[in-house]
Amino acid sequence: MDVRIINPFLAAAMHVLKTMAEVDATPGKPFLKRDDVAVGDVSAIIGITGAAKGSMALIFTEPCIMGIASNLLGEEFTTMSHDVRDAVGELTNMICGDARRRLAEDGFVLQAGIPTIVAGKSHTITHIADGPRLAVPFETATGSFMVEVAFGRSD
Amino acid sequence: MDVRIINPFLAAAMHVLKTMAEVDATPGKPFLKRDDVAVGDVSAIIGITGAAKGSMALIFTEPCIMGIASNLLGEEFTTMSHDVRDAVGELTNMICGDARRRLAEDGFVLQAGIPTIVAGKSHTITHIADGPRLAVPFETATGSFMVEVAFGRSD
Repeated sequence: MDVRIINPFLAAAMHVLKTMAEVDATPGKPFLKRDDVAVGDVSAIIGITGAAKGSMALIFTEPCIMGIASNLLGEEFTTMSHDVRDAVGELTNMICGDARRRLAEDGFVLQAGIPTIVAGKSHTITHIADGPRLAVPFETATGSFMVEVAFGRSD
Repeated sequence: MDVRIINPFLAAAMHVLKTMAEVDATPGKPFLKRDDVAVGDVSAIIGITGAAKGSMALIFTEPCIMGIASNLLGEEFTTMSHDVRDAVGELTNMICGDARRRLAEDGFVLQAGIPTIVAGKSHTITHIADGPRLAVPFETATGSFMVEVAFGRSD
């Protein structure tokens, strides 16, 4: 699988955060993950099937997601709440959907499940993938997050 | 959607744990979740698409998953490791696959993504679902776990 498959997810994350929450997210260099584990405070995970089976995770530090949620909802948030969880879920659906539209233009059609939100100080996220695991770190005004996409081998 | 869709996941969890790890898992009463959040120490999440889009989560207490992993791998585990993560991922694939086979016999065909493993003391798991969210608590000799399945409305 071409590692450039990460690029539509990167573009989607930037586009959705900018248009929905007026958040500028600056990407670092995409990399192929070799170590297992990403660490975050709030994560969103969504399953992918179709032309490839896999998963996408958005892994946020707490200051980062509170900044994004506050911008998105026009109200200051400092701790996890029902509203913040819903906002993260909606952003995840939008980012995954936008990436899938970009990939479909190249004939690579994916379906997505529904988002699951994880909250807990410094939890770890591991994709059980036997295919490529790709990651892009992002910086925002209030902190950093990571976009990870992992794929299994086709069956 | 018929809430009995949880039953194949329940049967699959019991069957896979018994045959692969010789663990007896005793199910409690399935229930429709109304509160948002499940709390666990180690969770596995896998996305579902096809006849319905959704997600399945297995949410373990630490003593429970260490007992299961120790049985499965024939070696005592007390903390998260690469081997335990892989074992949880493999169990998740098997439970989801077994449940999908049972559902396919009734003409309800689902696809699954790849598992994502979350570790972190007392993290919370929330499914962003506008359809039913179903849960079954289980007891094992070393502790409890929860099987949750959530579905979005069909698009």
